[in-house]
Amino acid sequence: MNDLSPQRSVGHVHLVGCGPGDPELLTLKALRVIETADVVVHDRLVSPEIMALVPARTRRIDVGKLPKHHKVPQDAINALLVDLAREGLTVARLKGGDPLIFGRGSEEAEAARAAGVPVSYIPGITSAQGAAASTGVPLTHRGLATGVRYVTGHRARDAALDLDWASLASTDTTLVVYMGAANIAEIALQLIRHGMAPGLPVLAVSAATTPRETRHLSSLGAIGTDVACLQPEAPVLFMIGHVAGLYAADCAVPAIAAYA
Amino acid sequence: MNDLSPQRSVGHVHLVGCGPGDPELLTLKALRVIETADVVVHDRLVSPEIMALVPARTRRIDVGKLPKHHKVPQDAINALLVDLAREGLTVARLKGGDPLIFGRGSEEAEAARAAGVPVSYIPGITSAQGAAASTGVPLTHRGLATGVRYVTGHRARDAALDLDWASLASTDTTLVVYMGAANIAEIALQLIRHGMAPGLPVLAVSAATTPRETRHLSSLGAIGTDVACLQPEAPVLFMIGHVAGLYAADCAVPAIAAYA
Repeated sequence: MNDLSPQRSVGHVHLVGCGPGDPELLTLKALRVIETADVVVHDRLVSPEIMALVPARTRRIDVGKLPKHHKVPQDAINALLVDLAREGLTVARLKGGDPLIFGRGSEEAEAARAAGVPVSYIPGITSAQGAAASTGVPLTHRGLATGVRYVTGHRARDAALDLDWASLASTDTTLVVYMGAANIAEIALQLIRHGMAPGLPVLAVSAATTPRETRHLSSLGAIGTDVACLQPEAPVLFMIGHVAGLYAADCAVPAIAAYA
Repeated sequence: MNDLSPQRSVGHVHLVGCGPGDPELLTLKALRVIETADVVVHDRLVSPEIMALVPARTRRIDVGKLPKHHKVPQDAINALLVDLAREGLTVARLKGGDPLIFGRGSEEAEAARAAGVPVSYIPGITSAQGAAASTGVPLTHRGLATGVRYVTGHRARDAALDLDWASLASTDTTLVVYMGAANIAEIALQLIRHGMAPGLPVLAVSAATTPRETRHLSSLGAIGTDVACLQPEAPVLFMIGHVAGLYAADCAVPAIAAYA
């Protein structure tokens, strides 16, 4: 090895939460990193409106995953981030929502740290918060919900939904199911079996805070059938609990006007 | 009434989530509203660094609440917001974290709507997300936590902590207790009684994402005593679950450097 060759310094991986979709819901820090990174690694959960903020000069790598069609396996994404940082680049790994809530950000961070690559997290507005703000349904509310809980309704192919149903069926907590469209019928049935009332309100929201936002108010007993009929575009978020009863289409702020 | 008098149009109330403290964790939308509002209504949960972003010309009203010393009752805050909007003003009601997670934002919105005042929500990074990003402890992680749950450990004076302990003591979910410093000993004891292991890791974080951030790694069995001895400044956030075991002071990003 040539002693005179310049030592290339290692770069940095930023795991950036990009929020639910509305580019105005980016944090100032996320925007700064997006604007200054050497390379942006993104997937389909980052909205087109946010990708439009990436400078034209910046290299972009799409590692988007489609359901049942993993374009780039997680291991390969981890290796890619490490390789880019080892080239001395500042890497912005963009993620929908928050990197530490169903974002697998900590797996990517572990890989980076194991390779000696500095890594940091930038939190983002998670979909439940975006849906709450745009629909007017609070996640907690005195007398209706003393807390809130997020679970994922996604499961690996052929695997069973391994959730603690007895614990989930607690009606003093708002339950938000992420990525649950494929399994909401089974989830609702299990929750009813474990004591939740079939009439408990459920608000299904997709593409919250974007111009494509849709909402459907239903009940635990009906949501499975409703989703099968309506076939909303995934990912769909389900807000389950008494707070969803506060939703009224005529009083809630329209999806777009809420952010005007 | 003089028909020629100009009709004063009603203003608008923005319920603005200001995040955990770091001003760079404001959303673009929150900053825009802070910079353009006619009047800012705030409390002690909004950091001094964020208050410094309020333009000098903007009127400020402090309705801060101290524990056991409610400076302004909630009803009076609701009435204040309505009165200001009826003067035709654009009101930015600043809140720590997210207005719809333990923020009582929906109570203020109900009061505004009942008075015919337009109201909208701007979500914010909640403390659990800020603490996760700065300490490197994920809220969900494959194999350790399939979901996350937020509850408040605060209780009204002389009232019992009315929580669904059996449901809370679910070890496949990260449990985050907000505002729990005063009652963490009782909370930990109840969780152990309902089946959680005394050795389960607990990370206590205060003032996450600010220069005043402190962290203390403990266990469910020891956290009550630890907090009594250390007396961290409130509000303190407790991250309870296997994920807290991923925290290592030497590998986690320092509080400030994480946001450099």
